[in-house]
Amino acid sequence: MVKRLKLKLAYDGTDFCGWQLQPDLRTVQGELEKAVSRITGTPVRAHGSGRTDSGVHALAQTVHLDIPESRISVPWQRALNAILPDDISVLEAGYVSSEFHSRYDALEKVYTYTLWTNRKYLIPQRRKYVWDCGFLDFEKVDQGAAFFIGEHDFAAFQNVGTPVKDTVRTLFEIKRTQGESSSEYILEFRGTGFLKQMVRNIVGCLVEIGRGKAEPDFVRYLIEGKDRTKAPATAPPQGLCLYDVVYREDNCGSDNSGRNKTRKDGSKHRL
Amino acid sequence: MVKRLKLKLAYDGTDFCGWQLQPDLRTVQGELEKAVSRITGTPVRAHGSGRTDSGVHALAQTVHLDIPESRISVPWQRALNAILPDDISVLEAGYVSSEFHSRYDALEKVYTYTLWTNRKYLIPQRRKYVWDCGFLDFEKVDQGAAFFIGEHDFAAFQNVGTPVKDTVRTLFEIKRTQGESSSEYILEFRGTGFLKQMVRNIVGCLVEIGRGKAEPDFVRYLIEGKDRTKAPATAPPQGLCLYDVVYREDNCGSDNSGRNKTRKDGSKHRL
Repeated sequence: MVKRLKLKLAYDGTDFCGWQLQPDLRTVQGELEKAVSRITGTPVRAHGSGRTDSGVHALAQTVHLDIPESRISVPWQRALNAILPDDISVLEAGYVSSEFHSRYDALEKVYTYTLWTNRKYLIPQRRKYVWDCGFLDFEKVDQGAAFFIGEHDFAAFQNVGTPVKDTVRTLFEIKRTQGESSSEYILEFRGTGFLKQMVRNIVGCLVEIGRGKAEPDFVRYLIEGKDRTKAPATAPPQGLCLYDVVYREDNCGSDNSGRNKTRKDGSKHRL
Repeated sequence: MVKRLKLKLAYDGTDFCGWQLQPDLRTVQGELEKAVSRITGTPVRAHGSGRTDSGVHALAQTVHLDIPESRISVPWQRALNAILPDDISVLEAGYVSSEFHSRYDALEKVYTYTLWTNRKYLIPQRRKYVWDCGFLDFEKVDQGAAFFIGEHDFAAFQNVGTPVKDTVRTLFEIKRTQGESSSEYILEFRGTGFLKQMVRNIVGCLVEIGRGKAEPDFVRYLIEGKDRTKAPATAPPQGLCLYDVVYREDNCGSDNSGRNKTRKDGSKHRL
């Protein structure tokens, strides 16, 4: 008998070769599985809600894994935070139904992409978390963003190397807010699911529009053409953050980490 | 003939042994002087508004230095940002009166200290910018903070190693705000000047009070006793940031960095 554990993780993607396990490379999945296995004494497979690329951050990567019965009483959040490297944290941990699947059960995902728009300088403390893209005309950016909303074939916005057959996705919203600094703007993407590098490809396109190098309705042309090679370059990874993953019953259950029920405040964090 | 240049700098203190020049150590002053000297071709001395310790950050360190006449037309902000290391940025640059002095002319300094108060985890992306001090009773912290406001002899809150004779300083305000994350609180200190490690020593004391290990009026006892050895330990450096330095005429003048007048938005940034 095993019990299924659900974890919500935050990580700083800077020093990881992405989420997915790869031999001889430092990945989030690799570090997590190593930490869990140290406690269970047996190999454990971690299933993430989706892969994040090298250099991409997360505030709410959701993971499930099966814990052998002999280790069910481990206070997982406390135990893992004690041994995980400094750039991964467990924000929530709790047992869920054995039917739960971090990827297939996700109803909605939220990514943020942070743009630094001051041409003259970049605050060094923000360097790893923003794209220093220079001045943008945000009226144009917003007009371009509107063309992405709804159900579309996003073939022109998927990574060339790893095509999937069904490239239709639904974007509910692209919300723009100002960051704490007057030079920072955050684009928040809500959708049912995202193709590989889809957010970064959309951002690359919106920045091109914001720079005045393309008109907002260029987006419609790209969506209709379904040709990645016509679209602007992919935005760099460090501005991107997996900000939230929404499930039907977003209840983490409880592990044995202490008296208090795990507070669900992960999505209140900002970088 | 030389012209006096005023710079406003931001830096990530993580990889610096503080502001002040030290042989064989990487310091902000050392890196800045090296960069300026590369352009002027002659040794240049940079005078900061104050020293920051190893690991302490800045969003508004203000510096003056004298530029030889032959290099007066250099667009300093652009030129320095092109050659300074990634962890230092010039936010403003402009010529000022040869009477201006970054330290003696400072009317007011503002430091922020950021506390991470979630006991269960720390968001990795915030690790270098907060003190992970655990749960605090902020009502008590505020009560303790109130005792510090005004003109006091802060002898019990200066670093043991480097005493100065006159330890009387005036604190105008300790303002507490919540950070972007629900787990983060920022204490903002405004005063005429600060003794070495004074802010970190005050924070160390306030955290002790917030943890319930001392009563708020312990502050009065410490101020009156003037004995550093009676006071709680110094708070760690990474939570501290030199946030603003205020001058009588806070006008940076202009250098030759471009068409636009330098925007004075440095103090709108947050980490």
